[in-house]
Amino acid sequence: MTPSPRFDRDGLVPAVVQAAGDGAVLMLAYMNEEAWAQTLSTRFATFYSRERRALWRKGETSGNVMRVLEIRLDCDGDAVLLIVDPAGPACHTGERSCFFRSVRSETGEPRPYRS
Amino acid sequence: MTPSPRFDRDGLVPAVVQAAGDGAVLMLAYMNEEAWAQTLSTRFATFYSRERRALWRKGETSGNVMRVLEIRLDCDGDAVLLIVDPAGPACHTGERSCFFRSVRSETGEPRPYRS
Repeated sequence: MTPSPRFDRDGLVPAVVQAAGDGAVLMLAYMNEEAWAQTLSTRFATFYSRERRALWRKGETSGNVMRVLEIRLDCDGDAVLLIVDPAGPACHTGERSCFFRSVRSETGEPRPYRS
Repeated sequence: MTPSPRFDRDGLVPAVVQAAGDGAVLMLAYMNEEAWAQTLSTRFATFYSRERRALWRKGETSGNVMRVLEIRLDCDGDAVLLIVDPAGPACHTGERSCFFRSVRSETGEPRPYRS
């Protein structure tokens, strides 16, 4: 039987997305049960948009889909890790990773990811 | 001014923890404002335990503290990425990463992280 995440009281579970190539953390999004099921069956990263209150296949408009190579659950099942092959930038800003803002780096300026 | 995360209606923000050495994703936990402030000032990963409803300096009992080398925010500020140097396993099970359970790998069996 495929293990399932523990969804929270809103029916969601956070999913961390990591690039298979160099291990960069690309984004964090949320899945509901349907997004989880779609991700498993299609092997493309699918989330639930809390803002739009709708299923959201990553890249459905931008084309920047994410092929899912591996799915992991954490020890207590309330977080998901997707290891993906991304077709383009993860971030709507065009940055490769959504985590492009560095807090209190030496210079006080944002630095490129993992530089 | 140091940018701050956007805390949710429960006053929490999810924080992804990544190992500086090889980029392994170690765990996901939550921060409240105090945990965020303590992480910034002490440079040791500090979270808020939703179960215990208390501030939780990672490793305070196990000794497996995490020195924070870099702190990142995502594009809309509702997720944190900590890049850390961990003193030991992240997981209470003794596994290096909490994400040690693989879902639907070829064999159906959990595989070691990034093997």
